Amino acid sequence: VRAYARQKAMKALDLGQEFDAPQFVLWGGREGTEVNGSMKLVDAHAWYREALDYLCQYSIDQGYGYTFALEPKPNEPRGDTFLPTAGSMLGFIETLEHSDMVGVNPEVAHENMALLNFPHVLAQVIDAGKLFHVDLNDQRFGRFDQDRRFASENPLLAFFAVLLLEEHYDGPLQYDAHALRTEDQEGVWDFVRGCMRSYLILREKVAAFKADLEVQEWQSAYRVEDERLGPLLEYSKSNASALKEASIDLAPLRERGIGLERIDQLAFEHLAGVR
Amino acid sequence: VRAYARQKAMKALDLGQEFDAPQFVLWGGREGTEVNGSMKLVDAHAWYREALDYLCQYSIDQGYGYTFALEPKPNEPRGDTFLPTAGSMLGFIETLEHSDMVGVNPEVAHENMALLNFPHVLAQVIDAGKLFHVDLNDQRFGRFDQDRRFASENPLLAFFAVLLLEEHYDGPLQYDAHALRTEDQEGVWDFVRGCMRSYLILREKVAAFKADLEVQEWQSAYRVEDERLGPLLEYSKSNASALKEASIDLAPLRERGIGLERIDQLAFEHLAGVR
Amino acid sequence: VRAYARQKAMKALDLGQEFDAPQFVLWGGREGTEVNGSMKLVDAHAWYREALDYLCQYSIDQGYGYTFALEPKPNEPRGDTFLPTAGSMLGFIETLEHSDMVGVNPEVAHENMALLNFPHVLAQVIDAGKLFHVDLNDQRFGRFDQDRRFASENPLLAFFAVLLLEEHYDGPLQYDAHALRTEDQEGVWDFVRGCMRSYLILREKVAAFKADLEVQEWQSAYRVEDERLGPLLEYSKSNASALKEASIDLAPLRERGIGLERIDQLAFEHLAGVR
Amino acid sequence: VRAYARQKAMKALDLGQEFDAPQFVLWGGREGTEVNGSMKLVDAHAWYREALDYLCQYSIDQGYGYTFALEPKPNEPRGDTFLPTAGSMLGFIETLEHSDMVGVNPEVAHENMALLNFPHVLAQVIDAGKLFHVDLNDQRFGRFDQDRRFASENPLLAFFAVLLLEEHYDGPLQYDAHALRTEDQEGVWDFVRGCMRSYLILREKVAAFKADLEVQEWQSAYRVEDERLGPLLEYSKSNASALKEASIDLAPLRERGIGLERIDQLAFEHLAGVR
Repeated sequence: VRAYARQKAMKALDLGQEFDAPQFVLWGGREGTEVNGSMKLVDAHAWYREALDYLCQYSIDQGYGYTFALEPKPNEPRGDTFLPTAGSMLGFIETLEHSDMVGVNPEVAHENMALLNFPHVLAQVIDAGKLFHVDLNDQRFGRFDQDRRFASENPLLAFFAVLLLEEHYDGPLQYDAHALRTEDQEGVWDFVRGCMRSYLILREKVAAFKADLEVQEWQSAYRVEDERLGPLLEYSKSNASALKEASIDLAPLRERGIGLERIDQLAFEHLAGVR
Repeated sequence: VRAYARQKAMKALDLGQEFDAPQFVLWGGREGTEVNGSMKLVDAHAWYREALDYLCQYSIDQGYGYTFALEPKPNEPRGDTFLPTAGSMLGFIETLEHSDMVGVNPEVAHENMALLNFPHVLAQVIDAGKLFHVDLNDQRFGRFDQDRRFASENPLLAFFAVLLLEEHYDGPLQYDAHALRTEDQEGVWDFVRGCMRSYLILREKVAAFKADLEVQEWQSAYRVEDERLGPLLEYSKSNASALKEASIDLAPLRERGIGLERIDQLAFEHLAGVR
Repeated sequence: VRAYARQKAMKALDLGQEFDAPQFVLWGGREGTEVNGSMKLVDAHAWYREALDYLCQYSIDQGYGYTFALEPKPNEPRGDTFLPTAGSMLGFIETLEHSDMVGVNPEVAHENMALLNFPHVLAQVIDAGKLFHVDLNDQRFGRFDQDRRFASENPLLAFFAVLLLEEHYDGPLQYDAHALRTEDQEGVWDFVRGCMRSYLILREKVAAFKADLEVQEWQSAYRVEDERLGPLLEYSKSNASALKEASIDLAPLRERGIGLERIDQLAFEHLAGVR
Repeated sequence: VRAYARQKAMKALDLGQEFDAPQFVLWGGREGTEVNGSMKLVDAHAWYREALDYLCQYSIDQGYGYTFALEPKPNEPRGDTFLPTAGSMLGFIETLEHSDMVGVNPEVAHENMALLNFPHVLAQVIDAGKLFHVDLNDQRFGRFDQDRRFASENPLLAFFAVLLLEEHYDGPLQYDAHALRTEDQEGVWDFVRGCMRSYLILREKVAAFKADLEVQEWQSAYRVEDERLGPLLEYSKSNASALKEASIDLAPLRERGIGLERIDQLAFEHLAGVR
């Protein structure tokens, strides 16, 4: 099976190259198990690494110039997929021989399945410099893979996902979704238009949110740097020593509201178009 | 413990009566277990029923005129609460001696904890004539009880909850929520205003959604009654016989799109204020 | 569509009768929606009731003698199924014209999908006198419908499910499960034998658990009836009055441990076969 | 706040050193948010990294010799914690200046909250060489942090966790759990004994499972290396070329059962003590 999978992958790289494909997305959908008793849970990670090291080297030797984007999913069709979330992919990538060629393709629905906050997921992938691709869609938390229309279930999470993508990403925006199976031909196009319209609607709202003076004021109030202590947060032996001895008055920190309910309500009102 | 709980409940009924309270909400937060080995799982339901029958009879005998609204929650503080969802409360109520005096107090966050769709939950409670009270708030699915600001997490579910409440409910709208603990005094009022503002904003949007001619057109297209077969859906021996023998042409049904993606996108666009 | 579904159901009742089938299990898998905007959430419950009233009356008029067992499932293939849990089925059944003919077919995996405790679910259905059928299988919580081998994921929950079934149920034990798709012919029979072996293994362990003197001792310690107050828990005007005025000393209750950790550990040790 | 947290952490390192503590476990419980609108989701990761780089350098400069173990948790008390799972911690660690000093402290209950398979989680952490510490306890999936007795909810997952720990880990086995709050003094000791007994019971069962000849036979059948193709899975230009051109006969692979139902049932039977 491993030999067959690797053969198919090399042939797919050859084929993609004919179309100048710059990136190879891998979703390891079968790479999981329902049965822990095989006692190969640790080995399985090594085998997956071997396969990726092999394909990276193959791409290099063929002069193909591919990058690879790994797509995590917590389960389905397997009971538990290995490397179930974008975070675990980041950890795995660092164990690869050519980790610089490999990034992540996070998908909204897949992180929702693991009850995770997609904007948080995006933020970590961005922080690690590994947002190579993104799959946009939506679904309700903690159930089967629904692949629904972008923003159709969790529009506030979609709002903040768009905010991060507009600030930190310029790759392809792919919709990995499908229309409800009750749709006819026209309904499928409604679905397609809906995915794109919702992104564009949210993009405008995000821009308005960021330009809103009240939002900006609250955001600057939310995080005040301390003039005295702030510089000590840069490490040096003497700064650490000074920080350790500094007297810190907690009373004003305890009294200071940081306005999160207000910012959060403003985000809702921008989403709702009533600001 | 049972004696003490019942004593306290009677005293609470006495006290509430002094303020002309018309309804007694019971959240059985301790009524669950982490340990199935007590082997009292069936008995526990009988004990809860005894307690409610007792309190109903007490209220009647005192001439108090209370109704009772049972508030389900799937877990926390107990590992599993008995009668964990609004649906299970409906089932339980029908086993009570005075089932007419007892209804449900569904809470958004509690049903979200069990990964359920709150508008669907409301619809069943309304259908059963048991929507005696409602607790509005919000939270992310499948985690601890967050009691967040109404509509702060799932605005589309809140949109449809408001739609159902405006059509089918005229009792009190209670916000069973609390501000984030990072808020100061002003932030707590922001939170309170946010709960109420969001309800009012959604109420206007729901009205606009229902008045939208395109929405109305799609909704009527969505469900077409068949002139020939429709009347046979009312039971009589002869109708059943005729329906069983009727020839039904599935081909047009299979080709007909029912426009659900379109309606769903229109709901998003009404929420977003771009219609 | 409704006409077609009803026609098919009547024909199925006719066919089942030829085999003397005593019970008709209905899983309303399509009866849900991803799109709340159809605004038919309340009506949908009424339509389902109409259909069941129709089929019950049809069965009566044909002299068939069926009972009906409704099988709930929270989602899949639909985003949210109506009447998603066994509890909600109980509530719905009480709104039917022939509610006495209709019970529940709870399935382990389906309740696990909604993060619920299956023995608790069984206990409520038993308490309501509505355990007409049961579907045994297993799966991990909060994900797609896995239909795995009985007791393969949550053996302690299976242990307590068997305990309740042995005490309160004498209907058919059905395994609604399938082998992993990697199995050959022999593996499918391994799966079948595994389902049945695990039930029989657990049945023996449950009997040993109940016969264990230490378990019995702890269980009787767990729930002590108070001689003075116990009788007042039976309602009468005078008992209620006496209970309300009774002095209750909470101190001994607060100090008394009820041994739940011990009972729970004993259950684990019986499962593990080390008692 | 950052200055205060860092000051406290340095003082804690100083204090731990007095007791020759070799490791510093950090659970960033407050490091999350309910409010994405702060627009600091990416920055938050950078701040956390700065703090850890600071503390690592402080430990080095003081000659303390600490290692650091990061403990992930998906939520609670915050709506969403940053770096919510062990996998995301692995990804984050690789961005640290002193990544070699920093590993993971996975906790059973915390991964269960995100619906993940704890043995899989352990396997990835082991594969990455980052299993610096482990927190043993248990809880049901997809709910509040229960911190229950080890193996009390998911004994099969505990079985495979013990298998991996016995093979790949020799650090401290910590129980991060608490007795049910209904226990008295004796019950708390029952709880403590239960945690340790269950580990020891499972350790024996795991050894028996691994020594079982039928298990060994099935496990070797499960993964057969192909003599012809196996060597080509080691990368070289010529091996890749040969593998790409090799003819692979899928028919026997498709017919071969791999006995996973059988292995899985044997694991259950070893857990149940009936082998």
